[in-house]
Amino acid sequence: MKSFEEIFGLRRALITGGLGFLGSTLAERLVQLGCEVTVVDSLIPEYGGNLFNVAGFEQKIRVNVSDVRDEHSMKYLVRNQDYLFNLAGQTSHMDSMRRPVSDLEINCHAQLSILEACREVNPEIKIIFASTRQLYGRPDYLPVDEKHLLRPVDVNGVNKMAGEGYHILYNNVYGIRACALRLTNTYGPRMRIKDARQTFLGIWIRQVIQNQPFEVWGGEQLRDFTYADDCVDAMLLAAASEKANGRIYNLGGCEVVNLAKLAEMLVQANRGGEFEVKTFPPDRKQIDIGDYYSDWGLIGEELGWSPRISLSEGLELSVGFYKKNLSHYL
Amino acid sequence: MKSFEEIFGLRRALITGGLGFLGSTLAERLVQLGCEVTVVDSLIPEYGGNLFNVAGFEQKIRVNVSDVRDEHSMKYLVRNQDYLFNLAGQTSHMDSMRRPVSDLEINCHAQLSILEACREVNPEIKIIFASTRQLYGRPDYLPVDEKHLLRPVDVNGVNKMAGEGYHILYNNVYGIRACALRLTNTYGPRMRIKDARQTFLGIWIRQVIQNQPFEVWGGEQLRDFTYADDCVDAMLLAAASEKANGRIYNLGGCEVVNLAKLAEMLVQANRGGEFEVKTFPPDRKQIDIGDYYSDWGLIGEELGWSPRISLSEGLELSVGFYKKNLSHYL
Repeated sequence: MKSFEEIFGLRRALITGGLGFLGSTLAERLVQLGCEVTVVDSLIPEYGGNLFNVAGFEQKIRVNVSDVRDEHSMKYLVRNQDYLFNLAGQTSHMDSMRRPVSDLEINCHAQLSILEACREVNPEIKIIFASTRQLYGRPDYLPVDEKHLLRPVDVNGVNKMAGEGYHILYNNVYGIRACALRLTNTYGPRMRIKDARQTFLGIWIRQVIQNQPFEVWGGEQLRDFTYADDCVDAMLLAAASEKANGRIYNLGGCEVVNLAKLAEMLVQANRGGEFEVKTFPPDRKQIDIGDYYSDWGLIGEELGWSPRISLSEGLELSVGFYKKNLSHYL
Repeated sequence: MKSFEEIFGLRRALITGGLGFLGSTLAERLVQLGCEVTVVDSLIPEYGGNLFNVAGFEQKIRVNVSDVRDEHSMKYLVRNQDYLFNLAGQTSHMDSMRRPVSDLEINCHAQLSILEACREVNPEIKIIFASTRQLYGRPDYLPVDEKHLLRPVDVNGVNKMAGEGYHILYNNVYGIRACALRLTNTYGPRMRIKDARQTFLGIWIRQVIQNQPFEVWGGEQLRDFTYADDCVDAMLLAAASEKANGRIYNLGGCEVVNLAKLAEMLVQANRGGEFEVKTFPPDRKQIDIGDYYSDWGLIGEELGWSPRISLSEGLELSVGFYKKNLSHYL
């Protein structure tokens, strides 16, 4: 079996959402593997793009500021790429309810345009699409595997479901190799912590290291968490394998904890801090899904992936990163 | 239990796609029940709208020519309606592959705009959404029930999946009562027979009554068929029942036949005709789903629906209608 250096070295990869949390983590890894990386990002202030995310290796990548909704720039950018890591998306559930049409434009329309561009100018490209466990909605059973019905509970979930659907369809009908990873709560250095737009864990981390008490809504809900580097591993494995074509894989975490326990672990990682357990605000309650954790056995079996970074280690690494770099994420 | 006359009499219903095959059949029925009906239709020549479909009762309804993509007209039209039968859609699978963005605009974007309009100006409305078995893709098992995974095999299927998702979501999150019926091969008087855009059965009927041999692709595939009046019954039952809110129901047919047998039955209904069994053209083969027939037990159990018109009777009625009215459908 070839090493990642042999697979990705001297190849070309385009990362949409490449200045975001996962996009930039992936970009750094690909650069280390000798890959020629272009990142595309809209740098819309409410989203996850942040130039500091590529600080230290910005000279080794090409940064193209544009929006995935810009069909012309996308059609230019996908040319001559070997890989497309398609991570750009509107990810805020509340924003998707307030501005459903913007969410549709980014998570559906732009995805279709990108696939059409690949079909027209680069059908040999291999695409990894970042999907989400949000598609499942409230689980019928746990852990949730890929056979679980999709019943999204917000506009974002419906639109991401369509975005994922297009990718699998273009793989099956046109042979444009594509697969989807359904990410669960992914966390780590570089995530947005200014507010709860990407994940509640972001704002918790910011508040705990600023010595402010953070709010835990509910507290009993079970979740699993994927550390960013583990998620990047999954993306590379999927990109490297022809077996992944047309496949949909759940990602997941090393352990399952409830949110109150997670809060305690975060306080421990920070060596101090306070939180308050509160009841759900009504607008969140409506789209709350109760317990969720995933069965990631399929990607384990087919691609050999498993999460490696334990939750306590991941939280330590995250807290350490933000303590050092806080000003760049406020 | 109240009769349909008591439920729909003197109430107001808006039907999108109301000059089309099912929309006009439903409109006629609602008029007979004493309902005040407005039909909206874009009359785009490639779609199913046809003014002849309302011939004989056009004075008893209000016809509004506009496109569901026109947010302003839709926001005006949904005001003060008790029911919205939301049937407008791009339904051609091949068209959705050739012009995926148009399909998205009609089957996703417009659906979201309509729901947003209802939320803003008429949250008390009750919505029946015409979905499709196309969402299931190639079945894992037969008959297909609503627990089957959705794996659409064309852009149309992905977009309709999103359109259905929005309706269920707006029911669950905003309390805008909505449900979805997953239609299978629906046929009968008023369907488009000019070409195979709505259903292959349309072009078969046209050719058989014009004494031309028609082409059967494959021939072995099993299917079930719903006669238009049975489908309209299901829509009325769903509109009349609060139990239907947030629900998704399969429709189906009285019997399951393969396409070669269907062709024979059509020739019999026509008292003559010829057909030729051919292998699938490559572009259709890619999106062919093999055998499909549905388990419609859920709507049977919850709303008391069952198909009543046998396939032979439905074919006789259809052939009779088109023999009489052929010129209006060419």
